Amino acid sequence: MSDWHPIAGGITAPAGFQAAGITAGLKASGNPDLSLLLAPAGAVCAGSFTLNRVRAACVDLCAERLAARGGQVRAVLTNSGQANACTGERGLIDSLKATAELAQRLGLDVEEVLICSTGVIGVPIPIEILIAGLDPLLAALASEGGEAAARAILTTDLVVKQIALEADLGGRKVRIGGMAKGSGMIHPDMATMLGYLSCDAGLPAEVWQAMVRRLVDCSFNAITVDGDTSTNDCFLAFAAGEPLSPEHWPALEAGLAAVSQHLARAIARDGEGATCLLEVRVEGAVDDAAARAIARTVCGSSLVKCAIHGRDPNWGRIVAAAGRAGVPFALEAVALWLGEHQLMAAGQPLAFDRPAASQYMKDRAAGTYLSADPVSGDTVAIRLQVGAGPGRGLAWGCDLSDQYVRINADYTT
Amino acid sequence: MSDWHPIAGGITAPAGFQAAGITAGLKASGNPDLSLLLAPAGAVCAGSFTLNRVRAACVDLCAERLAARGGQVRAVLTNSGQANACTGERGLIDSLKATAELAQRLGLDVEEVLICSTGVIGVPIPIEILIAGLDPLLAALASEGGEAAARAILTTDLVVKQIALEADLGGRKVRIGGMAKGSGMIHPDMATMLGYLSCDAGLPAEVWQAMVRRLVDCSFNAITVDGDTSTNDCFLAFAAGEPLSPEHWPALEAGLAAVSQHLARAIARDGEGATCLLEVRVEGAVDDAAARAIARTVCGSSLVKCAIHGRDPNWGRIVAAAGRAGVPFALEAVALWLGEHQLMAAGQPLAFDRPAASQYMKDRAAGTYLSADPVSGDTVAIRLQVGAGPGRGLAWGCDLSDQYVRINADYTT
Repeated sequence: MSDWHPIAGGITAPAGFQAAGITAGLKASGNPDLSLLLAPAGAVCAGSFTLNRVRAACVDLCAERLAARGGQVRAVLTNSGQANACTGERGLIDSLKATAELAQRLGLDVEEVLICSTGVIGVPIPIEILIAGLDPLLAALASEGGEAAARAILTTDLVVKQIALEADLGGRKVRIGGMAKGSGMIHPDMATMLGYLSCDAGLPAEVWQAMVRRLVDCSFNAITVDGDTSTNDCFLAFAAGEPLSPEHWPALEAGLAAVSQHLARAIARDGEGATCLLEVRVEGAVDDAAARAIARTVCGSSLVKCAIHGRDPNWGRIVAAAGRAGVPFALEAVALWLGEHQLMAAGQPLAFDRPAASQYMKDRAAGTYLSADPVSGDTVAIRLQVGAGPGRGLAWGCDLSDQYVRINADYTT
Repeated sequence: MSDWHPIAGGITAPAGFQAAGITAGLKASGNPDLSLLLAPAGAVCAGSFTLNRVRAACVDLCAERLAARGGQVRAVLTNSGQANACTGERGLIDSLKATAELAQRLGLDVEEVLICSTGVIGVPIPIEILIAGLDPLLAALASEGGEAAARAILTTDLVVKQIALEADLGGRKVRIGGMAKGSGMIHPDMATMLGYLSCDAGLPAEVWQAMVRRLVDCSFNAITVDGDTSTNDCFLAFAAGEPLSPEHWPALEAGLAAVSQHLARAIARDGEGATCLLEVRVEGAVDDAAARAIARTVCGSSLVKCAIHGRDPNWGRIVAAAGRAGVPFALEAVALWLGEHQLMAAGQPLAFDRPAASQYMKDRAAGTYLSADPVSGDTVAIRLQVGAGPGRGLAWGCDLSDQYVRINADYTT
């Protein structure tokens, strides 16, 4: 990982990628709401989609086109404001129409163009407004368009989520960019939001697809905000450029993981009503899958999330949540840390400095969140050892605040 | 069901059952905290226990003694205030000691006595205080002790949960009584709280055990308050009396189901911070298990629960939650009702009277809850049709309020 360093540019940092984000008028708020990502010729794209049985027509369209073309697609249009889910035949017709209009303008085959939608379920896209926005969107398309694109995919998110990394792999600069949006209906079940990744190294489609599957499992599938899986979740990852020699694939994958995990953590940190990021690290499980299952269950526990919000070192809730993860472990082997504070050993509570443990969580406050890196400084870290096995796993979530309830009780359908 | 009618007496309404509840001094609040249920000689008991990997010593003890004696146990002691979970060897020693002291005073074999504990995890029972309470507890033992016993098992619950029903089965009066406590860490995974049932009809142990397994699945396993499964959950059901002829077993089971479902609904209604009961009925699934899975997932969705709290007829969240239940159905076949208001047909939203649908939920307010039947009048009913299959299922939960967060953020470990 030490070879990868941050650079500017977000999703358009890799060579050859262009993006744009504009206000087309789809959102009543007047915020940017139409976004485009265009990959260079020869790009290969791998996708990961929501496992929700109720999924939007645009998700079906993306999955089918990626399969039909073996990943050879070039562009993704994203509209925010209307999820276009549960909109029946009209939802599909609108998705087809939007991609056909864009493909024509780009000189691409319609099957090379994907569409993602995010916003309120059951509301169709005002399709004439979207189509009227395509020319201005193309006029704004630029190799510096990453930030604008990242801004135009947001809905209730508070901050733009983007990142770019660069490394020297065998004497050649390789760049990876990413952008994502959250922040409600976030739970592990394949991709759990909208996420996009770009990379200016070329890889065989099947290698890229396998890499992306592994990425998702250790990043976007390891976050939960509220346990609800969205109807529209997509993660789309593009690779386009000179072929990268296989000896550098592991190094590339480390960079891809860093980008994906950054975006995943940023989504969890920007969870509705959240005041901190929660990171749960599980060690000593029978295997990695078991460790991840425990980590995700702890991260998703309402009682744990409330305790974190109250800055209460309530170890009993943490270990009780671990116990219901459906994974075998011996209580006698459990040890638990909150930051540097050890709370349990051999399955039993230790005497610990309760005010200091609470202060550790209080120090992870929301004060600087909106003006700084969305992830640094406000992470409450839980480490749970459940035995002597080789399994390790990480999950990320956030606290559960009365603000979350107010946002979601007062939200107008 | 029409043959069963309510009677007074709760858990001690069935002939031969005695109970008591006193303040032994285990709780700092001075509220009742020690409870005893004594079944008549010849009783058979069936139990259902938490599936949490982290479970209290008393749960292990109950399960082992029931198995060892083929259900031939007579008494259950319940202490509230300390869960005695994650207390290591001491937890087991204290459970053994408490049951041994009680068995001696009752003239029973120690294996005929069970113990349930509820309260804060990681806190051991002040065992000398408990043992000093046994003589006063036995002095209070009475065939009218049902209400006192039901009161002494509570922790954060707001109301006593008990019921008794009576019917004439073949010219003979049969009575069923029940009591339960909630109200946090409530989620389907075998018994999900403390629940007790008594019945003055005799049944073969294996018939009784099978009946109780079916009961739990349609009652205590169909409720969720916060998705967290407790470390201490037990449901214990005693049958003791003249043998009941097999032709009446189905009628008896209907009465048992009514008692169990009443207690389960009462637990959900008394969920922390709840302002209404949420009932989700699913029809048309491939089988009952699929229908129950969908019903439970909708009931457990934080976003649905927040919408109910905000009295917002947000059908999109309901159908999105149904979609992630892990059960196949076709969106095109989905129809949805909120009370009498139909919100969806053929997988798409209908135009409906939104203010009236919201008012339907507002009318289910908390105003009369504490002074009346915990279940009547404040039930928000959701009905979801997912196809034309034979599967039907019910689940109960409650809304998610900012009060829930405050209760669980400010709770001092």
